[in-house]
Amino acid sequence: MNEPVGRPLGVALLGCGVVGAEVARQLLEHADDLAARAGAPLRLVGIAVRRADRERPGLPAELFTTDATGLIARADVDLVIEVVGGIEPARTWILQALTSGKSVVTANKALLAEDGPALVAAADGHRTDLYYEAAVAGAIPIIRPMRDSLVGDQVTRVMGIVNGTTNFILDKMHTAGAGFAETLSEAQALGYAEADPTADVEGYDAAAKAAILATLAFHSRVTLDDVYREGITDVSRADIAAAESLGMVVKMLAICELEEQPDGGRRISARVHPAMLPAHHPLASVGGAFNAVFVETQAAGQLMFYGQGAGGAPTASAVLGDLVTVARHRLAGGRGSASSVYQDLPIAPIGDVITRFHIALEVEDTVGVLAKVATVLAAHNVSIMTMRQEDASGTARLVLGTHTARNADVEATVDELVAIPEVYEVSSLMRVEGR
Amino acid sequence: MNEPVGRPLGVALLGCGVVGAEVARQLLEHADDLAARAGAPLRLVGIAVRRADRERPGLPAELFTTDATGLIARADVDLVIEVVGGIEPARTWILQALTSGKSVVTANKALLAEDGPALVAAADGHRTDLYYEAAVAGAIPIIRPMRDSLVGDQVTRVMGIVNGTTNFILDKMHTAGAGFAETLSEAQALGYAEADPTADVEGYDAAAKAAILATLAFHSRVTLDDVYREGITDVSRADIAAAESLGMVVKMLAICELEEQPDGGRRISARVHPAMLPAHHPLASVGGAFNAVFVETQAAGQLMFYGQGAGGAPTASAVLGDLVTVARHRLAGGRGSASSVYQDLPIAPIGDVITRFHIALEVEDTVGVLAKVATVLAAHNVSIMTMRQEDASGTARLVLGTHTARNADVEATVDELVAIPEVYEVSSLMRVEGR
Repeated sequence: MNEPVGRPLGVALLGCGVVGAEVARQLLEHADDLAARAGAPLRLVGIAVRRADRERPGLPAELFTTDATGLIARADVDLVIEVVGGIEPARTWILQALTSGKSVVTANKALLAEDGPALVAAADGHRTDLYYEAAVAGAIPIIRPMRDSLVGDQVTRVMGIVNGTTNFILDKMHTAGAGFAETLSEAQALGYAEADPTADVEGYDAAAKAAILATLAFHSRVTLDDVYREGITDVSRADIAAAESLGMVVKMLAICELEEQPDGGRRISARVHPAMLPAHHPLASVGGAFNAVFVETQAAGQLMFYGQGAGGAPTASAVLGDLVTVARHRLAGGRGSASSVYQDLPIAPIGDVITRFHIALEVEDTVGVLAKVATVLAAHNVSIMTMRQEDASGTARLVLGTHTARNADVEATVDELVAIPEVYEVSSLMRVEGR
Repeated sequence: MNEPVGRPLGVALLGCGVVGAEVARQLLEHADDLAARAGAPLRLVGIAVRRADRERPGLPAELFTTDATGLIARADVDLVIEVVGGIEPARTWILQALTSGKSVVTANKALLAEDGPALVAAADGHRTDLYYEAAVAGAIPIIRPMRDSLVGDQVTRVMGIVNGTTNFILDKMHTAGAGFAETLSEAQALGYAEADPTADVEGYDAAAKAAILATLAFHSRVTLDDVYREGITDVSRADIAAAESLGMVVKMLAICELEEQPDGGRRISARVHPAMLPAHHPLASVGGAFNAVFVETQAAGQLMFYGQGAGGAPTASAVLGDLVTVARHRLAGGRGSASSVYQDLPIAPIGDVITRFHIALEVEDTVGVLAKVATVLAAHNVSIMTMRQEDASGTARLVLGTHTARNADVEATVDELVAIPEVYEVSSLMRVEGR
């Protein structure tokens, strides 16, 4: 057994919530193994928290401080872990650490999605590491594969289930046949959704992850504002039932695509929304709090990464993997492979994005309605792939599956359809992804 | 768009078969993108081949040389790609490159499984990189996640489908109901199996990958000789039919486990053999030439990595990802995260390994046979979980599913069972994995 030979590296931990406490415990408990793997002891020298007097079982009280800035500045701190979350003061602390040449490990997706390039530039400028495997899809190694493993290839598409809360809720809506509101309440009672569920159910969390993944995949800056976003609050029982009758499931997806333009240029589209997926698609069976990311590239073809997307221990696994990695780089006298953003590709507006659609219409049960509907679709270049008519008492339901169409064309189609007197209602409208 | 600023890095390519030719073509075709991502142009300065006069479409004739040693030694060569395969001369060339401080990217699983630690030591000693993502599971990023992403966690189990040829053959046996020999002939005709299929069907290829994965997973040296190995040549139509009737599929698996001993010590088991898997297991639906690796860890829980396991373009994707990564490290003045082998854990003999088993017996259709069989199992501590009796004309078939049992105990059980006069034959015997 080789003994670690390097001088100890000091670790400052910023934040001691669920993830931070787990990181601290594992740093102390597995100190020998981590030292052997890094090549030097990783010594936890301090934990910055808002309130130092709170009881934190198993963690020595003398480690805690409310002075994050002072902790980061300590001469014996080499590595800084940020698991506070949010934009400020996390950004200020991370920049302080990077500009003083310390290596940073963070799980902060919101900050990376808003200001990632500035942080990366600070790391580059001071020749140190900024690692953030835990920021997307929890324990699943996805940042490293995207940044390093696939860097010699061209990623063309990323499609992921990257938010456990919405995946749990949609799962429950399928199995229990329940509506969104009551399922959300149940998820909150079980601790799968927060008291204020906005970030999850409105898609902000998934959109931040989409921005990070798109930036890595396409080597071009994509921020939260570039990501089209629809939440799951409008997903109805009717949508779920329609999906099931078509052999599909409704999933909240983050989708990033590289689009070749007719003029030879390229555009990026990044979007987060609920969509129907065929039941046989690899992402369709990703249940509950699990995450998965499906990646398509020019040379490697299809890849999938699957695992737990959240939780203290899984997220701590990702944080500690990064910590050992950046420690190894420091000991080797260099830094790791940084992400390369060398393009500034335009972002396609959602109206230009091409997808398939499911459209269900409640219509008057009279001759000629289908002809009117079909005429509207044709006028907007929306081509029908499948059509089914279901009769009820007095009304009929038209269930249409389209070929791929521009989102703007489908939107215009729907606006015109609801203006037809015999069309009572669009009872379900959803994008269809996967093959 | 940032221009790459570094001086060009020279690349020597050793080998120009399916993978090498693809690597060379992509290096030339995507030179601008690769330069932007690496931070400096990656210039292909030479390709070492056995016969320089062969026609190689699209690749400049002046790049070819038969003098690999001279090519590696060139002052303008910084990075060496080895895709020749086999033990020698690949080992000599890789050691020459590493000891002269050049970074090495290789896809050579056989060499790594036989002599990995010596190569890693040479890279460590000369403070340079040895990267080998393409050696296991083709395009799937699995080496980097195991070596870096999960290094702060404790991997407890790795179970993978890592050989496309055997996966293709077993798939075909399931769908066509055909025997091994005729399916192998078909696979050979289609190019999915080699003329000499020994390395694949006897499990040597999968065993080499298991050795590499176990070494990374458990930070302990595991070589090809440490891996228990059974091929698929004895998998019969009866085995396949039995699996199907039990709601399972037969897969060729590479399994690496960390075993906690009663005395607090740890042992490693590494084995490659066909086994039955429940149809709902994530690995069960991995079809054809695809590979997948299922990983269990203490903190991250269950992870799965899925993608194409072989082929020129997918393997080239992995090679070029490594190439850009090691180029970035050179330009940053350091080296990457190296694997850490700091333990020398004992290897458990196959007899001590604990698994479940499926056993089918053709027996005389008389009273008391089951009692005799059950007595033999009980005497060897093999506990029956499921039992089904199928009657045929004059004979009966007993289909047993065991609880987990020591492999040695099951072997002794079977030896004793066949000695019972009323037991005509053990018609199917196979391990059962997954939950």
